[in-house]
Amino acid sequence: MNRDIDELIDRALEEDLGSGDATTDALIENNMWGKANFLVKAEGVLAGIEVARRVFQKIDAEVQMTVLIVDGSSIMPGNIAASVEGSLASILKGERTALNFLQRLSGIASMTAQYVFAVKGLPVKILDTRKTTPGLRMLEKYAVKTGGGQNHRLNLADGILIKDNHLEALYARGLNLKDVVFRARQNTPAHLRVEVETKTMEEVSQAIGAGAEIIMLDNMTLDMMNQAVRLINHRAQVEASGNITLTNVRQVAETGVDFISIGALTHSVKALDISLEFERN
Amino acid sequence: MNRDIDELIDRALEEDLGSGDATTDALIENNMWGKANFLVKAEGVLAGIEVARRVFQKIDAEVQMTVLIVDGSSIMPGNIAASVEGSLASILKGERTALNFLQRLSGIASMTAQYVFAVKGLPVKILDTRKTTPGLRMLEKYAVKTGGGQNHRLNLADGILIKDNHLEALYARGLNLKDVVFRARQNTPAHLRVEVETKTMEEVSQAIGAGAEIIMLDNMTLDMMNQAVRLINHRAQVEASGNITLTNVRQVAETGVDFISIGALTHSVKALDISLEFERN
Amino acid sequence: MNRDIDELIDRALEEDLGSGDATTDALIENNMWGKANFLVKAEGVLAGIEVARRVFQKIDAEVQMTVLIVDGSSIMPGNIAASVEGSLASILKGERTALNFLQRLSGIASMTAQYVFAVKGLPVKILDTRKTTPGLRMLEKYAVKTGGGQNHRLNLADGILIKDNHLEALYARGLNLKDVVFRARQNTPAHLRVEVETKTMEEVSQAIGAGAEIIMLDNMTLDMMNQAVRLINHRAQVEASGNITLTNVRQVAETGVDFISIGALTHSVKALDISLEFERN
Amino acid sequence: MNRDIDELIDRALEEDLGSGDATTDALIENNMWGKANFLVKAEGVLAGIEVARRVFQKIDAEVQMTVLIVDGSSIMPGNIAASVEGSLASILKGERTALNFLQRLSGIASMTAQYVFAVKGLPVKILDTRKTTPGLRMLEKYAVKTGGGQNHRLNLADGILIKDNHLEALYARGLNLKDVVFRARQNTPAHLRVEVETKTMEEVSQAIGAGAEIIMLDNMTLDMMNQAVRLINHRAQVEASGNITLTNVRQVAETGVDFISIGALTHSVKALDISLEFERN
Amino acid sequence: MNRDIDELIDRALEEDLGSGDATTDALIENNMWGKANFLVKAEGVLAGIEVARRVFQKIDAEVQMTVLIVDGSSIMPGNIAASVEGSLASILKGERTALNFLQRLSGIASMTAQYVFAVKGLPVKILDTRKTTPGLRMLEKYAVKTGGGQNHRLNLADGILIKDNHLEALYARGLNLKDVVFRARQNTPAHLRVEVETKTMEEVSQAIGAGAEIIMLDNMTLDMMNQAVRLINHRAQVEASGNITLTNVRQVAETGVDFISIGALTHSVKALDISLEFERN
Amino acid sequence: MNRDIDELIDRALEEDLGSGDATTDALIENNMWGKANFLVKAEGVLAGIEVARRVFQKIDAEVQMTVLIVDGSSIMPGNIAASVEGSLASILKGERTALNFLQRLSGIASMTAQYVFAVKGLPVKILDTRKTTPGLRMLEKYAVKTGGGQNHRLNLADGILIKDNHLEALYARGLNLKDVVFRARQNTPAHLRVEVETKTMEEVSQAIGAGAEIIMLDNMTLDMMNQAVRLINHRAQVEASGNITLTNVRQVAETGVDFISIGALTHSVKALDISLEFERN
Repeated sequence: MNRDIDELIDRALEEDLGSGDATTDALIENNMWGKANFLVKAEGVLAGIEVARRVFQKIDAEVQMTVLIVDGSSIMPGNIAASVEGSLASILKGERTALNFLQRLSGIASMTAQYVFAVKGLPVKILDTRKTTPGLRMLEKYAVKTGGGQNHRLNLADGILIKDNHLEALYARGLNLKDVVFRARQNTPAHLRVEVETKTMEEVSQAIGAGAEIIMLDNMTLDMMNQAVRLINHRAQVEASGNITLTNVRQVAETGVDFISIGALTHSVKALDISLEFERN
Repeated sequence: MNRDIDELIDRALEEDLGSGDATTDALIENNMWGKANFLVKAEGVLAGIEVARRVFQKIDAEVQMTVLIVDGSSIMPGNIAASVEGSLASILKGERTALNFLQRLSGIASMTAQYVFAVKGLPVKILDTRKTTPGLRMLEKYAVKTGGGQNHRLNLADGILIKDNHLEALYARGLNLKDVVFRARQNTPAHLRVEVETKTMEEVSQAIGAGAEIIMLDNMTLDMMNQAVRLINHRAQVEASGNITLTNVRQVAETGVDFISIGALTHSVKALDISLEFERN
Repeated sequence: MNRDIDELIDRALEEDLGSGDATTDALIENNMWGKANFLVKAEGVLAGIEVARRVFQKIDAEVQMTVLIVDGSSIMPGNIAASVEGSLASILKGERTALNFLQRLSGIASMTAQYVFAVKGLPVKILDTRKTTPGLRMLEKYAVKTGGGQNHRLNLADGILIKDNHLEALYARGLNLKDVVFRARQNTPAHLRVEVETKTMEEVSQAIGAGAEIIMLDNMTLDMMNQAVRLINHRAQVEASGNITLTNVRQVAETGVDFISIGALTHSVKALDISLEFERN
Repeated sequence: MNRDIDELIDRALEEDLGSGDATTDALIENNMWGKANFLVKAEGVLAGIEVARRVFQKIDAEVQMTVLIVDGSSIMPGNIAASVEGSLASILKGERTALNFLQRLSGIASMTAQYVFAVKGLPVKILDTRKTTPGLRMLEKYAVKTGGGQNHRLNLADGILIKDNHLEALYARGLNLKDVVFRARQNTPAHLRVEVETKTMEEVSQAIGAGAEIIMLDNMTLDMMNQAVRLINHRAQVEASGNITLTNVRQVAETGVDFISIGALTHSVKALDISLEFERN
Repeated sequence: MNRDIDELIDRALEEDLGSGDATTDALIENNMWGKANFLVKAEGVLAGIEVARRVFQKIDAEVQMTVLIVDGSSIMPGNIAASVEGSLASILKGERTALNFLQRLSGIASMTAQYVFAVKGLPVKILDTRKTTPGLRMLEKYAVKTGGGQNHRLNLADGILIKDNHLEALYARGLNLKDVVFRARQNTPAHLRVEVETKTMEEVSQAIGAGAEIIMLDNMTLDMMNQAVRLINHRAQVEASGNITLTNVRQVAETGVDFISIGALTHSVKALDISLEFERN
Repeated sequence: MNRDIDELIDRALEEDLGSGDATTDALIENNMWGKANFLVKAEGVLAGIEVARRVFQKIDAEVQMTVLIVDGSSIMPGNIAASVEGSLASILKGERTALNFLQRLSGIASMTAQYVFAVKGLPVKILDTRKTTPGLRMLEKYAVKTGGGQNHRLNLADGILIKDNHLEALYARGLNLKDVVFRARQNTPAHLRVEVETKTMEEVSQAIGAGAEIIMLDNMTLDMMNQAVRLINHRAQVEASGNITLTNVRQVAETGVDFISIGALTHSVKALDISLEFERN
């Protein structure tokens, strides 16, 4: 497992355990044994089950977790995603942290899957954005992929995306969009493509003329998007962005864009309801 | 600023910047100067403005951020929460990370404020839970407080809360709830109070008999809660928990409980819409 | 083993080994094998044997340590607490660090046991304080428990203890002790009890009136303590603190206090004499 | 200040503050101001006052600490070593950690000074050992120097000291002491001198013959030490070690040894009584 | 300064200072003051002067360093690149570490400048590779840029480069180069261009057909490179790689390639001779 | 493996992998298996093979590496130093980092071996210096030893070396070399020998008179070195330093010095050509 994720799990355990689990330490003897199941209580797509396993491993290497449903599977209330068996105290100490990861990541995967389902049959990809929870980007992007989405730039280093703020600043210095794209091409590593954010047909037109390889249509109406896609006419790839919801995502897709990016996939997540239920023994 | 939060900001910047901002490095010269405003685009309560400031400080100590609205204030679309001024490149590099913190924390504070408003006038406190995003607990609990809520246990070390899973395990070994509370009292530091989670009137009754200092009513109906509050009759404090929404929170409060704890405050957050808009210069 | 303790062992090894053991590297070949015994040379209670084991594990995973006496056992000169077998160089490199932990922790456990023995038969608990060696609190508190004592607050977060300095500051602002206790109760998490430090009968009396749950008698004479215990009359728990030694601890206990806290358990430790003796082979 | 010490202070604060000072947070408002004095309550030598200052700096950069007595000074009950002024809450949060450092280091310096005084007028140096508290070696060695002692090896890398366990292992393989010293000389960096631990006159004699540059007399009687010093006759430096107390240290010094090393300086420390007293304002 | 570089400087100082500078501590008093100059002793290009400054800052914030020649400047024997003034002990402690950085980075910049000079007037860029010293990549890539070169991929994440080992593995599974490029395009983030390593004209031809955006000519003769450049005919960018030296670099450039990458720039560095000379005072 | 080296490997992998290997992730499936050989392409001495192994272990614990040639062996073009077998993706991800270590360390060992060979038969030792790559000192010193050299001081703490800058500073305060050596002897730990750097016969003469234990002849001509060695006449050890190359090292050795230290061993390294070649399967 990736070291950054490993460290995140460490921090999550530290913040949840503090100097120890006072209740469990007071009540549960070390030789008590237990078994518990991750019980799904809502419909969606599972993501994060291996992170949950890692949580228990870190608390107690002898806790055994058996995964019954793997990440990316559709889940229904009543499903048992995994079971854990071992020291009762260890299971109790890891419960909340494991669930906090699992519920959040499954929430992201489930919402992504809804968007992917909404555009089914159309040649478009659902993308995430950089609007992720600080410290969790890799996990959240993983959850988007698990739900059937694709990942946009991981960070500012691995893609050129000229945004409105870049353009404004350079317009103010007398450059036009074409100059800006040209400057970007001159100054960036040969391995990166150039994407430009546009708000008007005029900008779309200039972006194509300047040889932009991807054109983002930012907050455009459906009409504008249709027009832009026809104007671009496969000379660049097209990404729709801004104010896209489950209600309108299919219409956006039908304009013929190649990508639809959705910030809410990661910035407004609803945890998927999953709980840990102990078996009577 | 707390060291853990400081490290979280470092990690957030690292995951967003990677090996650098390729676009800004390609386009924006070091001597370009800019000014931008945090523009509020939705109604709510502001939280996290000092975290946003710290983000810019870490990128470039010479970026000046002027806070116009402090945490805890009610905000409306059109408000300007703060402005930043300095190297254009530095502002562009910090923009997304600052917003990711600010939008999320303001989202939490805003939702909390809605719950607090819903129970206005009643002697009850809205509490958060341990269902926080891994790695962000301190900030999220801070946002809850900023929104007018109170904090439940920060972690497993600073409070005794005997949950159903503890009880089940000990019932299976022949103890009853009274025995369990007594064992907790014997084995825990003198400075901690004992809270017990109950699901039935029978458990509530035993908990009082055992001298529990706080009694949690877990997933009870309004009727049961009413009955429980009368049964307890101020011999312990009472906390309602489970399936509480903006729709029913006032009714729950009217049962006379002392605390209402709500997982959704932190596990299902909707980012508050705030953006960073550059001024033309 | 707890991660903080693990890191402490790492630091201890780093500070003892620096860039390597010049003597052992010069003299002892890698294929030399040895066996050595932890020889007890003073009477007391053993604590820290698993820490010693961890020291050797970190230097060389193939060194085998066999524990013959477990933590908490009474030990006598001539006892062998454990033996280590493996690469001679590895054992020599870990010797001092393992002993530094073992001697110190056993010193604490042994002194604690003397206090516990001194109050045998009386319903009182011997507590430690926060006067621990910087960086070693968890281990030192563990040693106190191993010697039969109980742990006071682990840190400032897990208990409310209103000390003279808090009181003075608030008296100066016109509050009385009752106001202070009330303010504490209002502003602190529901899970924490409130303890107040008192120096006079007047303060004891006010503390009870204010509903303090634990009352500390600070630096009182035996007479005052007797009087205070009668005054409190089980309406709160009572902790004696200040200038308590092996000579007077039983008299203090006989006043009827519930707890006696002793800073010297951790701030003035005498290492217990234990050495590592190699077997001739 | 050295980075290792800085990190130690961080850890000490973390272990004392945990997730915050619940009492101070509940009672003391942020705008309350205070002044407090470090009051000496026992006779000795001060050490660690700058560490105490650093503790407060880390909690709150605006707390002002004025040092009135510098490290190494003789102190008497009633002396004020330093005063701190600033946010009352900040001072209360740092109090215990600052005192834990200051009391311990002053305890070491004071005991060292007693030994140094006991051998006054004789050409001998009092040395510490590697029997230090894990994680505090640099500070403890600093305290020994502050008390007038000298530092032995900081760690295993910066000196060659052939101990009994090295000798035993090599005797068992057919080497004699002379061979061992020769092997050490061959295999160690040119910059290090060679010291050998001896228990008998025979070993002393061999050590000189082998060209050892320092000879340690381990646990010898005064008679043996006298004899050894005469035998060595300035051909090497001489260190006495083992069972040396304040009672016999002068007699040991009078044998003519160059160094006397004393483990108790750091392994059996008695904290010097210093407290922090707030001024009424 | 970048945090990774900052940590590298910390480690460099730690490994050079160990537990302190024994010589300087023994000889130089804290109040001795000094001034020293970085004296250039060989011809080349300066790089790393700000790293040197940071070294001294970390040792002693009061040491003043005045930079006289900035990075990227041509330097000659006798030039003074910078002067440092302050505590003599601090300057002595930082000397070696500062020089180790400065000499190495200037060595890289100087060699890069020789290659850049050799191809002067031709439309080609000199690139570095990933053959950097472990832990120093960012600094070494900075030095290449300072010497007039350009940076190839910083790491494996920020560019697609299909190398012979990738091709071999996939040929063995029945794919041809065209299939491989197509698979790469399908599976990689939209923001990255695809580069392919080729060894034969056949591979070059397939790479163009497959739409590769950059084609690397690996270890080809000048004749082959000429032929490849004509074959590609501006349909992709071209990078020459392998066995390129100062002797043949111009001939390689004359084939018309767009980039020439040279591992030796970072894997076989000759430190540039610079020393720190104290002024008599 | 030493923790510092372990951390260095972590950093090296982080800087090479960034957020992942985009090419391998796009092309190579997780179930593809491969075997590759470390092929030697130049003559020299191997060093670092266990570091290479650790690199792969860290990426994927299931990659098996079989070492065929151990560190310190002479190697020839065509030799296979080791083979790795396992997940193809894992091998590709570790390839560059493993080679960067192996080529650099073998480069150092090979150059050292050339110097050692050049002085074969003479009673002199080839030493490294502190002119190492920042962050790699331990590995580079290991490579020097592997090549048959000896290590000078690891850092400033483990040896007294009075350099020209120390002397200048103290001359300016009226001391002569004899005073300086005496002061060094007074103030430094008993375990360290004193070395002095000299540039003239006068200084050599004073150094002997002052009892210096090692005398460095800095940048002297062969004639001066001859004269100095005769003057010293075994009363101290002698180290030659400065401007020593493969061409003149034997002549320097023939003057009778005990040590020759060579900065170029680590400051001007030429990577030894080793590649990783996959087997067809």
